[in-house]
Amino acid sequence: MPAADLAPEWQVTRWFNSEPLTLASLRGKVVVAHAFQMLCPGCAMTALPQMQRIHSAFPPERLAVIGLHTVFEHHAQQNPEALEAFLHEYRYGFPVGVDTPTDAGPIPLTMQRYRMQGTPTLLLIDADGVLRDQHFGTVDDLSLGVAIGRLLAEAEAGVSRPAP
Amino acid sequence: MPAADLAPEWQVTRWFNSEPLTLASLRGKVVVAHAFQMLCPGCAMTALPQMQRIHSAFPPERLAVIGLHTVFEHHAQQNPEALEAFLHEYRYGFPVGVDTPTDAGPIPLTMQRYRMQGTPTLLLIDADGVLRDQHFGTVDDLSLGVAIGRLLAEAEAGVSRPAP
Amino acid sequence: MPAADLAPEWQVTRWFNSEPLTLASLRGKVVVAHAFQMLCPGCAMTALPQMQRIHSAFPPERLAVIGLHTVFEHHAQQNPEALEAFLHEYRYGFPVGVDTPTDAGPIPLTMQRYRMQGTPTLLLIDADGVLRDQHFGTVDDLSLGVAIGRLLAEAEAGVSRPAP
Amino acid sequence: MPAADLAPEWQVTRWFNSEPLTLASLRGKVVVAHAFQMLCPGCAMTALPQMQRIHSAFPPERLAVIGLHTVFEHHAQQNPEALEAFLHEYRYGFPVGVDTPTDAGPIPLTMQRYRMQGTPTLLLIDADGVLRDQHFGTVDDLSLGVAIGRLLAEAEAGVSRPAP
Repeated sequence: MPAADLAPEWQVTRWFNSEPLTLASLRGKVVVAHAFQMLCPGCAMTALPQMQRIHSAFPPERLAVIGLHTVFEHHAQQNPEALEAFLHEYRYGFPVGVDTPTDAGPIPLTMQRYRMQGTPTLLLIDADGVLRDQHFGTVDDLSLGVAIGRLLAEAEAGVSRPAP
Repeated sequence: MPAADLAPEWQVTRWFNSEPLTLASLRGKVVVAHAFQMLCPGCAMTALPQMQRIHSAFPPERLAVIGLHTVFEHHAQQNPEALEAFLHEYRYGFPVGVDTPTDAGPIPLTMQRYRMQGTPTLLLIDADGVLRDQHFGTVDDLSLGVAIGRLLAEAEAGVSRPAP
Repeated sequence: MPAADLAPEWQVTRWFNSEPLTLASLRGKVVVAHAFQMLCPGCAMTALPQMQRIHSAFPPERLAVIGLHTVFEHHAQQNPEALEAFLHEYRYGFPVGVDTPTDAGPIPLTMQRYRMQGTPTLLLIDADGVLRDQHFGTVDDLSLGVAIGRLLAEAEAGVSRPAP
Repeated sequence: MPAADLAPEWQVTRWFNSEPLTLASLRGKVVVAHAFQMLCPGCAMTALPQMQRIHSAFPPERLAVIGLHTVFEHHAQQNPEALEAFLHEYRYGFPVGVDTPTDAGPIPLTMQRYRMQGTPTLLLIDADGVLRDQHFGTVDDLSLGVAIGRLLAEAEAGVSRPAP
């Protein structure tokens, strides 16, 4: 499979709830990630509680649940200390990485690389590191469950998927 | 795979929303079935709306959503005409089969064969006709989605599963 | 206050969960009633669980929660024995009266007198026996709570309301 | 009614969505207020959406819906600019006042005066300015609706309530 298929590595300045994590280091696991902002209602009300449900339901050696704090507005109010207080109050225990701000504009680096349109954005990455789905907006539990189940089954079977 | 692995064929006296359907005729599709009673609150409030969501979300050539009306109490009040009115009022469009009553006792035939403990009972049957999961009670959308996603992925990949 | 203001007396052939109850006998209490059919989805999924919440929240000497089974279709399938099984399975404990069928047509007598358009229909009757609100369809908890709170306050204060 | 019955005046340093508002200036209206913190999950997930529903359901000349930002922890992360971003993102349109911080400790002034135990705390104040209910924690829509309905009925009837 050509390297171009691999999900771009994320660029994170600081991690909460985890040692530093590269996408490469998660190879072999299915990765469910949500890019979010702590003050985005669809993130706080829907996407993050869903991430917590997924985090509670699966063994971490099989599935990695990751949050990416991709701040593109209200930078001063959504700084890492505010995020830390937010994660503490909501008791979110999954790893959350802070996307790297740039001098060139409001959009942080990982958000740029994935050409995300906003938050929340769901990323589904298979055990081979390939980005299999990217979705802007919230997703219902049934659909997301089906997508996760497919990737877990592939990972367990060692199924080879033809390059797209 | 030995025949003993196959899910027992259901015994249905009448179908709604479908021509008569055998389990054998659904080979090649993933089958999500709920045994239910129309007057069982967990069935009417939770399991059947969930079945309708699944029915709307997947193409019927890949996934078969089936209801089995396994009446083991209130036989006179849950007769096929009452079921027909119920399905009509709730606008449920997936196939529903009426489990076969017996003279020997209140438990109908398919319910006996699967040794079900009550309603709702979820049956997950893979594309090879093997009963992969049977669960008494309601199941949340995330867990059920994952289980369906696994079976769909296996069916698509033509994965061989070792006999249990 | 002229008698014309009083809510029409209901015509009930049989009561569940209660001795026979006339509207007149409830004078002094606020009455929250829902006309329903056991096979009507809006009734079973929304209105009746709401009635149960109200029934649990208020002392019966102040507020009477009443169900009226106003069957206008599927008469054979929604007979009193079916209703009894339904109430038993859902563990509904508030009084439910069966509206009187007529030979003249499908609409039962109380439903005719109140000129109801369908089910569920909410009736709010004050402690003086006056019909204060009638609503076809479901009502959210906040709005219904406010309406109940008003009638309870009036009843407690012995407020006189000008005739409409 | 003795002055001791009146709800203590709030002490607010800054208002959002409104000109400065004293409790005294709201006399004649029922006041539903929630003391909250923007990073408190029970506030953000439950109490504030409920306030928004109430704000949408009633005419402002009859009922005043007020938020009080009573920050007692994470002061730096829950400053007025962060609150402004939060209110903007959630599109909350009801008046929100910032409780006055003190040098003596983490608890702001209004929170002290009402001896609140935490957030969210609901305050129900009648049209005469009397504190009728104070509740720490979330309240369901039915119960809160009933409490509001009672106060509205009293206000409309000009009912006199005996001093407690």
